[in-house]
Amino acid sequence: MFQTPFMRPERTPRQVFDFAVDQAIECDRVGFTEYWIGEHATMSWESITNPELIIAASARETQNIKLCPGAHLLPYHNPATLAAQVSWLTHVTEGRYILGIGSGGYPSDAALRGLKDMSTNHKRTTEALEIMQKVWESKPFHFEGEFFSAGYPEADEHHEYRSTVPYGGKVEIGLAGLSPNSPSLSFAGRNGYNALSVYAGEAAISNHWNVYEQAANEAGHTVDRKNFRVVRDVIVADTDADARKLAIEGGIAKAWMEYLLPVYRQVGLLQAMLPGMDVADVDLDTLVEKVWIVGSPDTVAEKLAASCEKTGGWGTTMVYGHDYLDDIKPWNYSLQLLTEEVAPKLA
Amino acid sequence: MFQTPFMRPERTPRQVFDFAVDQAIECDRVGFTEYWIGEHATMSWESITNPELIIAASARETQNIKLCPGAHLLPYHNPATLAAQVSWLTHVTEGRYILGIGSGGYPSDAALRGLKDMSTNHKRTTEALEIMQKVWESKPFHFEGEFFSAGYPEADEHHEYRSTVPYGGKVEIGLAGLSPNSPSLSFAGRNGYNALSVYAGEAAISNHWNVYEQAANEAGHTVDRKNFRVVRDVIVADTDADARKLAIEGGIAKAWMEYLLPVYRQVGLLQAMLPGMDVADVDLDTLVEKVWIVGSPDTVAEKLAASCEKTGGWGTTMVYGHDYLDDIKPWNYSLQLLTEEVAPKLA
Repeated sequence: MFQTPFMRPERTPRQVFDFAVDQAIECDRVGFTEYWIGEHATMSWESITNPELIIAASARETQNIKLCPGAHLLPYHNPATLAAQVSWLTHVTEGRYILGIGSGGYPSDAALRGLKDMSTNHKRTTEALEIMQKVWESKPFHFEGEFFSAGYPEADEHHEYRSTVPYGGKVEIGLAGLSPNSPSLSFAGRNGYNALSVYAGEAAISNHWNVYEQAANEAGHTVDRKNFRVVRDVIVADTDADARKLAIEGGIAKAWMEYLLPVYRQVGLLQAMLPGMDVADVDLDTLVEKVWIVGSPDTVAEKLAASCEKTGGWGTTMVYGHDYLDDIKPWNYSLQLLTEEVAPKLA
Repeated sequence: MFQTPFMRPERTPRQVFDFAVDQAIECDRVGFTEYWIGEHATMSWESITNPELIIAASARETQNIKLCPGAHLLPYHNPATLAAQVSWLTHVTEGRYILGIGSGGYPSDAALRGLKDMSTNHKRTTEALEIMQKVWESKPFHFEGEFFSAGYPEADEHHEYRSTVPYGGKVEIGLAGLSPNSPSLSFAGRNGYNALSVYAGEAAISNHWNVYEQAANEAGHTVDRKNFRVVRDVIVADTDADARKLAIEGGIAKAWMEYLLPVYRQVGLLQAMLPGMDVADVDLDTLVEKVWIVGSPDTVAEKLAASCEKTGGWGTTMVYGHDYLDDIKPWNYSLQLLTEEVAPKLA
């Protein structure tokens, strides 16, 4: 699951927090393998400021699921502080952790940190990651970069320092791509990190994999589609009619009509998702039929298989979380059908 | 409680995390009012990297206790990021939150952030706090300081931004002092923040209050000893003999013999705690009799009352947490006796 979150702006932080933790517990219970949580400081939607809080509160209440910041926006943290916190959290979760990293895409998040534009964000991200990797070696160094400073103290006979080496020796890292020829996915490929394709139409899925694979191959890394993640909107119910009703009357419809459609129209993403369509005509029916994957377990399995066939395929479907706080049962049942009924059909 | 934590260095991060959360739950259950958690990135003792994790995991499992980072070291964070996270957490805890702030006292924590000395830490702290207070107003600004930049985005008809105003409108802040004439406590007084005296002998308690009160009065703030917190080591059992045994055979003795005594000797603090004594002679008996407060409920109440009498008094006793992981029952019973038996005698 990708808990962006798409909780309605009027939800309180406590509601968002509790919902996100409860969903982590539910996803773990029904067999999801990964739970990703967004990080944004200024957004009225996508309103989790600190994904670590959800991870910490979920760590004790889950058994198998991996808990993943998705993503920490590296320009906006002290990188050595974040590295030490991430390392500690890999131990707290006993390795049930993948670190999503990003450069930040929203000008308002940048403005909060006094950045008038995002022109240096990619350079800040690269430098921050270089620092974090050094901190995780837990060996003395001193670094003064263009944006950040960091180090690790020299050994001292009077002080024993805690190791900052992560659980298992290294941190598994992932990056998400949305735009065509995503520079984030090239970066992921070059460095041997995991790739996530945030859904931007089926052509984008193919493009994202190709960009990622090519960058990986050029850097000498072998990558496998089984480890490629694609984020989709998926709603399952016993029948196609029930699933459709759960979609068009539920949180997913509200998030798309009030937040995502206007944004996606503005940035041209909607046209990429629906080639050949006039985006002015897009309504809930279009979304149910052509963007989301909605239906009975058989229907959803067929649609996912067809999309894999058409795009070259992927290994992990990441399902967007949505705001079904007022009536959670059919939503949780959708998650359960996905793992218990749909997944075996695609195995 | 002040969960520094004094967990033995060989404890895993998961053990430290679970112990800290379990202790928050236990403290809440027996009626403690506040639970403070340290933040250090490099220490082998005092090994909680991110107190937010303990707070988040405790928020759902506690009802009344306030959950307090003690302290966030402001030079080591992106202040706007921290401000947004703190604000969100005040809402998640529905106001059960006090923000401890500090400048950082350990050279190794500074080295991790690329600081070769701590000469700029106080200036960084002041600038960071200025930024955080601005962020909490949730109104447009842009600030470029000596160490940090920050801002809040201008309103935009296309975007609704989330408020960064904390729960209840403002964040309650506290600072701890340890050294004589503590600059931190002067700062707390000048700004109308809470004051905590980390135990450094009874003369220091008086000195800390005087420094705090004088700074407060000069700035036009009225302060009350009822809101003055003093951190003490306290062990209670049914009898003096049982309490003594729990102390000298338990985690408190290990923390003092292996960590605190050597450090306190080195920095001259031990001499301040034990005026007139040769610090070379300090042993567990000295600590039980003259530094810690150990005994039956009657004995502990008498000792606390005598210490209040001698120093001018304080409103909240903050008890250090200690590593009783291997046999938690007598430690938790000590906490229960403190709230149920000792506190009423002092009311």
